[in-house]
Amino acid sequence: MAAEIVNPPSEALDPVDPAFALHRGGKMAVQATVPVRDKDDLSLAYTPGVAKVCSAIAERPELVHDYTWKSQVVAVVTDGSAVLGLGDIGPEASLPVMEGKAILFKQFGGVDAVPIALDCRDADEIVETVARLAPSFGGVNLEDISAPRCFEIERKLQERLDIPVFHDDQHGTAVVTLAALRNAAKLTGRSLGQLRAVLSGAGAAGVAIARILVEAGIGDVAVCDRKGIVSRDREDLTDVKRELAGFTNKAGLLGSLESALAGADVFIGVSGGTVPEEAVASMAKDSLVFAMANPNPEIHPEVAHRYAAVVATGRSDFPNQINNVLAFPGIFAGALQVRASRITEGMKLAAAEALAAVVADELSAECVIPSPFDERVAPAVTAAVAAAARAEGVARR
Amino acid sequence: MAAEIVNPPSEALDPVDPAFALHRGGKMAVQATVPVRDKDDLSLAYTPGVAKVCSAIAERPELVHDYTWKSQVVAVVTDGSAVLGLGDIGPEASLPVMEGKAILFKQFGGVDAVPIALDCRDADEIVETVARLAPSFGGVNLEDISAPRCFEIERKLQERLDIPVFHDDQHGTAVVTLAALRNAAKLTGRSLGQLRAVLSGAGAAGVAIARILVEAGIGDVAVCDRKGIVSRDREDLTDVKRELAGFTNKAGLLGSLESALAGADVFIGVSGGTVPEEAVASMAKDSLVFAMANPNPEIHPEVAHRYAAVVATGRSDFPNQINNVLAFPGIFAGALQVRASRITEGMKLAAAEALAAVVADELSAECVIPSPFDERVAPAVTAAVAAAARAEGVARR
Repeated sequence: MAAEIVNPPSEALDPVDPAFALHRGGKMAVQATVPVRDKDDLSLAYTPGVAKVCSAIAERPELVHDYTWKSQVVAVVTDGSAVLGLGDIGPEASLPVMEGKAILFKQFGGVDAVPIALDCRDADEIVETVARLAPSFGGVNLEDISAPRCFEIERKLQERLDIPVFHDDQHGTAVVTLAALRNAAKLTGRSLGQLRAVLSGAGAAGVAIARILVEAGIGDVAVCDRKGIVSRDREDLTDVKRELAGFTNKAGLLGSLESALAGADVFIGVSGGTVPEEAVASMAKDSLVFAMANPNPEIHPEVAHRYAAVVATGRSDFPNQINNVLAFPGIFAGALQVRASRITEGMKLAAAEALAAVVADELSAECVIPSPFDERVAPAVTAAVAAAARAEGVARR
Repeated sequence: MAAEIVNPPSEALDPVDPAFALHRGGKMAVQATVPVRDKDDLSLAYTPGVAKVCSAIAERPELVHDYTWKSQVVAVVTDGSAVLGLGDIGPEASLPVMEGKAILFKQFGGVDAVPIALDCRDADEIVETVARLAPSFGGVNLEDISAPRCFEIERKLQERLDIPVFHDDQHGTAVVTLAALRNAAKLTGRSLGQLRAVLSGAGAAGVAIARILVEAGIGDVAVCDRKGIVSRDREDLTDVKRELAGFTNKAGLLGSLESALAGADVFIGVSGGTVPEEAVASMAKDSLVFAMANPNPEIHPEVAHRYAAVVATGRSDFPNQINNVLAFPGIFAGALQVRASRITEGMKLAAAEALAAVVADELSAECVIPSPFDERVAPAVTAAVAAAARAEGVARR
């Protein structure tokens, strides 16, 4: 191999922005939780003492959960194909997000997490790779993998592995959205069954939100993609959207997002697009507008407030932020606590209910969802998810 | 999926042995190295602040080393096929060793490390899997992978990746053995060139030790496997042993281990077998006996001392422990410090020299190698390896 060219100094990109200063050297580290101060420590934590522990696990495989960190560590897996709003930036460039996710797992859920950015794109290759890694981890959080591959990858891994596999861009978003919607409905005196929702965006988040809303008993939900309402009549649908058409849009609406919004109770935007003020104005009284595109909501919250009873966004600088960090740390903490073999629909619904219930007396139009820094959140979600796992028979202790 | 059967309590295997108590819950954790206390912290360490860092890396890929933990974290990769003396116990049962290795990396070298136990056995599948993981890591430490697959896997990964790939069972052992041998030769007034060595064991460690001894200028080394001396005339050799026969045994010895030992200066055992007292008695005056099989040395140190000037073992309860922890933390720390693209032969030789040099005035028959807890070791090895990487043109900063 020839001598490598030394890189030019990187200070050019590292001037005044505090994000660069903060990221220098990365955001995480590993630490030993047992002492290694002397020979005796070493002979217990490593050879020869460790051999007895290995032999015990070889004999009784379930002991791996007791005597290693497996049951407290999650792999945060991406291929870098759909990172934030940046798109396909590849595995290395996605690492700052995966590290961020890992430290949020730790900070909010007490769950250890390791960023794994994969240099491969084929869905089956990703499935195969993650399956080979699985012995080392108690769960897999799929992150920032583009649709529709994300659906196939998650499904195949769930079928293959006996540990939780959870695509947070889908289900984390869905759980927090449902929690906020529960409280918004309550605040405006309606049940979920009384609500007709229109969802803009049929990607990872849109599909998962539609699914959880239907499971939670929403009156009806129509999902719109760039070509309008996803309906059984359309002939341009992917497999995922065809499935979506099968369990949404009971009313059989046809046409555009704008036409769907006329008289609707709820707008949920996860599209990255925009929605005209007139369309929001045409919604039912006391409408609920969740304009979650980042960084630019589908409609500016101040404009939406002219018509809507409750407005939520994906941003931290407006009230009611739909932030996945409210869900994924507690969901994995609960699943790992009882060594769940998977994360069921019931566990997600339980997470949403518990999350909504954290907002009790504080419930108002400005507070349908707790702050990420509300310390009641993770314990409530963890306990609810663990209990649901037991109830659904997927707990292993 | 059917409800899982709840495991029986595991207390039966966890009674009085302190190794089990110590291992409960694993031996390591992840920690954030940046604060996540409030909205402002979150908006820098995660969205939206992290997006700028991702974009910068997408634009200038080398920045991944500056702004993520990549350049300080090593994957400790195994398939569980040759774990300690336990053999093929599989990935899960190998995890306590890999965690142990990871915390030694941290404790002794300040290097973060993550255990990755793979559920696959085919050499090409392991290569492919590790190559896909590589974007997340600054180096790969291969561990407890059986020979001869370990040679092929390491070579193919080294050809494919631009980060250090190092099979510690080979090279860690080789570096520490060479360091001890340097000092033992010095103590007994001989140069390496004056020594004739006999090596018992032609597995991972044996092959690497033979190679480094030849590179370091040993007079001659004959390697013995179960069938006797590895020589060019033998027709039962694997590819690896044929290569070995090409650069060892200049004297063209034939026959048994015992016959090779007659008059030899050095015995190095990495076989797991035994060597008869008579054979050690037949060695040259001031012989150097490194009986490194664990837990049972090829010959008991007290017996060996009847004939040998210096005796070393793999055990911590005798003097002169040949312990890999003296090498791998500093070797990776040095390689990562300068972002070396690989670990060259020169870097390994430099590590051995630096390690040997730590023992200065203390040099004695009971001290030819430092204690693992000698705090001078890792800094010395780190500095020597970093300097050698620069000298050999594989440093990237």
